Amino acid sequence: MSETAITAALIVIGDEILSGRTKDKNIGYIAEYLTNIGVDLREVRVVPDQEAEIVAALNALRRRYTYVFTTGGIGPTHDDITADSVAKAFGVPIDVDPRAKAMMLERYRPEDLNEARLRMARIPQGAELIENPVSKAPGFMIENVIVMAGVPNIMQAMLDNVAPLLRTGARMVVETVEADGVPEGIYAAGLAEIAAAHPGVSIGSYPSFSAAGFKNQIVVRGKDPAAVAAATAAVRALIAGLKSDRAPA
Amino acid sequence: MSETAITAALIVIGDEILSGRTKDKNIGYIAEYLTNIGVDLREVRVVPDQEAEIVAALNALRRRYTYVFTTGGIGPTHDDITADSVAKAFGVPIDVDPRAKAMMLERYRPEDLNEARLRMARIPQGAELIENPVSKAPGFMIENVIVMAGVPNIMQAMLDNVAPLLRTGARMVVETVEADGVPEGIYAAGLAEIAAAHPGVSIGSYPSFSAAGFKNQIVVRGKDPAAVAAATAAVRALIAGLKSDRAPA
Repeated sequence: MSETAITAALIVIGDEILSGRTKDKNIGYIAEYLTNIGVDLREVRVVPDQEAEIVAALNALRRRYTYVFTTGGIGPTHDDITADSVAKAFGVPIDVDPRAKAMMLERYRPEDLNEARLRMARIPQGAELIENPVSKAPGFMIENVIVMAGVPNIMQAMLDNVAPLLRTGARMVVETVEADGVPEGIYAAGLAEIAAAHPGVSIGSYPSFSAAGFKNQIVVRGKDPAAVAAATAAVRALIAGLKSDRAPA
Repeated sequence: MSETAITAALIVIGDEILSGRTKDKNIGYIAEYLTNIGVDLREVRVVPDQEAEIVAALNALRRRYTYVFTTGGIGPTHDDITADSVAKAFGVPIDVDPRAKAMMLERYRPEDLNEARLRMARIPQGAELIENPVSKAPGFMIENVIVMAGVPNIMQAMLDNVAPLLRTGARMVVETVEADGVPEGIYAAGLAEIAAAHPGVSIGSYPSFSAAGFKNQIVVRGKDPAAVAAATAAVRALIAGLKSDRAPA
């Protein structure tokens, strides 16, 4: 009765992320987006602007997951090598795609579509284009690899455009239980027992820290709503019991 | 005359990052920190709370880079499996470490140091501890792998504590040139020529987008200050020339 999970990996391409100069905003956005449509993001890699590294990551991940998304490296400058790296990974030719060029002519006059800008119309053979409403230069999808821009608002528009084409699985059901001041070290043993008794769900404990001290949340996730509800009820009962143990007599 | 680069990879461990529930704040911080001390971050992987995935990432990366940092998964609950995974990757035993237990007794009364909390004192054999001034449960370093907490302020304190122990290389010199309204597609050809003529530096072009339109920055990076200065001067001259070309006659 369990349907096959639809899985994904994300490759973030860019020296600027690895140097810390640019702080990535795409990983969290894509993770949340894919979770919401029923695609399980299983791995993320950040790699430099080097063809061998990009090709190695593509080939390792595209065979392992239903989809591989990439962000970054599809602009007009010499450091934009994603499309060529994807062509190399698939062993297909790459050249200026007339469909992509036509899209770019919606923005540029023909005399302004110089060689650098035409670089953004270079698409590996066999790919489908992904429209870019912001600046026209398209992303593309070849087999199970989806190539998107790195600029967040362009990436987001491309993701909206490609999402309807994807196979999706059951959506994850997520319940969050506030630990209400009970420390992780106090509820850990009970939580491990609940996790063992509910193998169909994943239960995580997430501390965060602020000037007010630790605040813990317990998150129950799974694709079977009844199983998530049962595990969540058990967690709520655990925390309520421990809280009353700790209340002043 | 070129010294060997000191390199690093980062493994971010946590289902909560891959589901999008928690937005990672550690990658950008660690990237910038390592760059500033002369360690080149070459790759980042985000992996789930699954032993096989953590072990595979550790073994792939620890043989390839000078250092491998990890964040996340060292708390007291059942989903905190980083220390055990590291022990497995190195093939060494893991047990409660008396030094780690002593650190935790600075925070907890002996009767409160229950089995779950003692889990945080489980350290692979042969590791050196990394002090945690925030909540006492330590990180550790085993061979070239540095294991840190996922909570950002604890991770940051651990990074401060381990940094003096690391070998570091020449610091990256970074110069940023504002493209002053010249579009990427206009300066791309000239920039590629400059990049080809200055092989010792890396030159990146980074667009960002806001309501005001695109804003491009060109970043020149390298470890030889003179080479960076020469390439930067060439980039500035390129942009100044293109800007005057575009000025009203």
